[in-house]
Amino acid sequence: MAKELKELCSRSENYSQWYTDLVIKADLAENSAVRGCMVIKPYGYSIWEKMQAQLDKMFKETGHQNAYFPLFIPKSFLSREAEHVEGFAKECAVVTHYRLKKSPDGNQLIVDPEAKLEEELVVRPTSETIIWSTYKDWIQSYRDLPILCNQWANVVRWEMRTRLFLRTAEFLWQEGHTAHATKQEAEEEAIKMLNLYADFAEKYMAMPVLKGVKTANERFAGALETYTIEALMQDGKALQSGTSHFLGQNFAKAFDVTFLNKENKLEYVWATSWGVSTRLMGALIMSHSDDNGLVLPPALAPFQVVIVPIYKNAEQLKEIDEKASSIMLILKDLGISVRYDNNDNKKPGWKFSEYELKGVPVRLALGARDLQNNTIEVARRDTLSKETRPMEGIGLYVKELLEDIQQNIYRKALDYRSKNTFEVNSYDEFKEKIEEGGFLSCHWDGSPETEERVKNETKATIRCIPLDGDQTPGTCIFSGKPSARRVIFARAY
Amino acid sequence: MAKELKELCSRSENYSQWYTDLVIKADLAENSAVRGCMVIKPYGYSIWEKMQAQLDKMFKETGHQNAYFPLFIPKSFLSREAEHVEGFAKECAVVTHYRLKKSPDGNQLIVDPEAKLEEELVVRPTSETIIWSTYKDWIQSYRDLPILCNQWANVVRWEMRTRLFLRTAEFLWQEGHTAHATKQEAEEEAIKMLNLYADFAEKYMAMPVLKGVKTANERFAGALETYTIEALMQDGKALQSGTSHFLGQNFAKAFDVTFLNKENKLEYVWATSWGVSTRLMGALIMSHSDDNGLVLPPALAPFQVVIVPIYKNAEQLKEIDEKASSIMLILKDLGISVRYDNNDNKKPGWKFSEYELKGVPVRLALGARDLQNNTIEVARRDTLSKETRPMEGIGLYVKELLEDIQQNIYRKALDYRSKNTFEVNSYDEFKEKIEEGGFLSCHWDGSPETEERVKNETKATIRCIPLDGDQTPGTCIFSGKPSARRVIFARAY
Repeated sequence: MAKELKELCSRSENYSQWYTDLVIKADLAENSAVRGCMVIKPYGYSIWEKMQAQLDKMFKETGHQNAYFPLFIPKSFLSREAEHVEGFAKECAVVTHYRLKKSPDGNQLIVDPEAKLEEELVVRPTSETIIWSTYKDWIQSYRDLPILCNQWANVVRWEMRTRLFLRTAEFLWQEGHTAHATKQEAEEEAIKMLNLYADFAEKYMAMPVLKGVKTANERFAGALETYTIEALMQDGKALQSGTSHFLGQNFAKAFDVTFLNKENKLEYVWATSWGVSTRLMGALIMSHSDDNGLVLPPALAPFQVVIVPIYKNAEQLKEIDEKASSIMLILKDLGISVRYDNNDNKKPGWKFSEYELKGVPVRLALGARDLQNNTIEVARRDTLSKETRPMEGIGLYVKELLEDIQQNIYRKALDYRSKNTFEVNSYDEFKEKIEEGGFLSCHWDGSPETEERVKNETKATIRCIPLDGDQTPGTCIFSGKPSARRVIFARAY
Repeated sequence: MAKELKELCSRSENYSQWYTDLVIKADLAENSAVRGCMVIKPYGYSIWEKMQAQLDKMFKETGHQNAYFPLFIPKSFLSREAEHVEGFAKECAVVTHYRLKKSPDGNQLIVDPEAKLEEELVVRPTSETIIWSTYKDWIQSYRDLPILCNQWANVVRWEMRTRLFLRTAEFLWQEGHTAHATKQEAEEEAIKMLNLYADFAEKYMAMPVLKGVKTANERFAGALETYTIEALMQDGKALQSGTSHFLGQNFAKAFDVTFLNKENKLEYVWATSWGVSTRLMGALIMSHSDDNGLVLPPALAPFQVVIVPIYKNAEQLKEIDEKASSIMLILKDLGISVRYDNNDNKKPGWKFSEYELKGVPVRLALGARDLQNNTIEVARRDTLSKETRPMEGIGLYVKELLEDIQQNIYRKALDYRSKNTFEVNSYDEFKEKIEEGGFLSCHWDGSPETEERVKNETKATIRCIPLDGDQTPGTCIFSGKPSARRVIFARAY
């Protein structure tokens, strides 16, 4: 029964069901009793912790510091920046009272009407407003700049249709908020963080991403420019995986944050903000996994190697235990994280599918015959291939194998993206191609109207104007008007 | 002016003002625009990060895993455990709506009455209820036990009188929630985590703590037993610094969480929960700091050593820069965190007070004469003493000095506590002594009534019944009735 329970729907059968099955059955996350809020289970959370640790290191190496700002935002703060409030007011959790009490009949717990807040508080959907109200006190002169803060936090956006990791009412993220003396410095910061996110996605998540800039329609509410990394999932849909915003002086003006520049003149401060969230978990899962379960890049796997003993009796197990201990020491010395599963309640076959489902990059199996022959069975999760190797030199072999797996799943994802990126030159072709999925590189006349109409007719949006794409002019596939350059369309999560 | 702004009120003048001055002027935290919520500034947050990293390591070494549960708790969940709701309903932030909209005149942002939640959500004041509603689905058999989860999270308790770090409406903490098959195992877990907290406090925070059990009056709402670590602050007041609760089967019963035991019988699951919070920051600050500012234990200092150059001209600075670089390399190789402050905008004297204020354990000053003599000035923050040392062997000297500082501030705090712990044998003596502060070790008849009356008359509470204190019987200082053993009274934060 246990085995049956763990079986996944296949991707070709129902991609969306496959994803949900996988998230739940691999013990990554589940829905909670609170609508739209998820529980991140220990195995899923340990992947998120690895992402956090690496990103945090990269933020610190680029001069950023962590801080913490309040969960609540006074309602009036949200209104200060006109576009920002448009973007977020419609999906806010609003705190109106600060006390519960027993109902008059004593049987129920009710909101105490006497404990009504003078001003309602919004649970932060993002923290620009509360942070810029704080920066006002931190900044007087150019000497106080730049401020390079990041915070790891939970945020809430009251989404109506939610999916584990991809779109949840509450999610975990980091949000960087920087303040600068010049426009140029802020623009450079926004680009720097975009590049940092792309590096992280490619090197650690093994996920190729397209770097680009968003169109006005798709910009963050309150930004002058939104930079994005876009990844292509195995069903041909795009996933926005991280954004970095050049906010200009919008929030400085909304919260009256000025500084005396070197010429002793008062100026508004320049800003950026940038964030990635637990949505990256969804991106990671969908980039590499297959019908047998999760495929994790070694760089982010909670443990990289599992050793499974194959034995007939306690005596054999004892011998294998000893050998396994010595292998574990060797692997740990090489910086490899490893687990030994000699749980006697489960059969090896059950363990094999369990670790396949959980995406453990390398599985070592050790049986009585291996002890005799001084060999070990090595199975890699990405290709599902296995081979018997001499025990001699197994540590270095596994180390290189892990590096190879990391490279291989990146190449595989890159190859998939290449095969699913198309230059499209007419709207008819576009409408046909978009049904198959993928990134469509097309000419666009630059107008929000065209973008909107294409979206309404095909559900495809402009994912980004690539930073380093083809810059040749042409004619818009929709309107036939002149186009400065190709942009990337796709259906998206 | 900068210097003046940084001056602290002295402890003897006004202890409470000294604390607030220190928190703000050392850039640890500040009040935010949201009542009762603080902003934790980068310097303060980096101390908290060090605490987190160490605690997280200790949790994992003892077999715990991190997970994440929702921020919101349905109102009805809170009511399930009768004592729990009593404890928390009166100070909850309540979310009643999920949307804001423009007022009819278009000038204001108002709560959209049509977006009222069917059931109100409470921002978690603690997570027993949402977690046990989740555990119900995770636990069927004894094979699913134990569950050893921890989460790092923000929580909200609508406190009316708040103080930075010590009592804030929102605070950061970790909460462990474990599920066990037997009462004994759960009790052992609660004690294990108490000991872990005490080890952390003593070894890393350099703060001696008293381990004990709370009286019924002071127990966590819903617990059968609350264990606590209590520290003594420099004003003679106690600070509860961490608690670990044996919850019995209360939450399992409230959420109907049962399991099949080895004999195939259905039983309720046994539980513990345990937590420490950003309140530890307050404890750390008040344990060691002095009228010149913060004193940080090297184990938790954001940087352990600062090097300040003393120079008359650019040429001298260049030479000192070079020497400083080589010292930094030596220190970093020894695992010491170090910063070099050659900022030309500030005078050495200003820097000296700044780093004193910020509690940097060791300050090295390097001048032209030092270069000639191959010496360096070493100042320690805890004793404020300084000496000129030969450059030769400076790395190891500083390393040992840091260890010595860590030990010394612990001894100092322990010495303070010893001198301020008194055996008190009459109520008259008690009333006199309590005005001076300190831990009062007294006989108590064991009744909540006595405890309550002493509290009303003297503002002192029973901090704990020490786990390893004197077990000799006697007579209650208040009622004269028989007392099984001495307990610790104090006024507390």
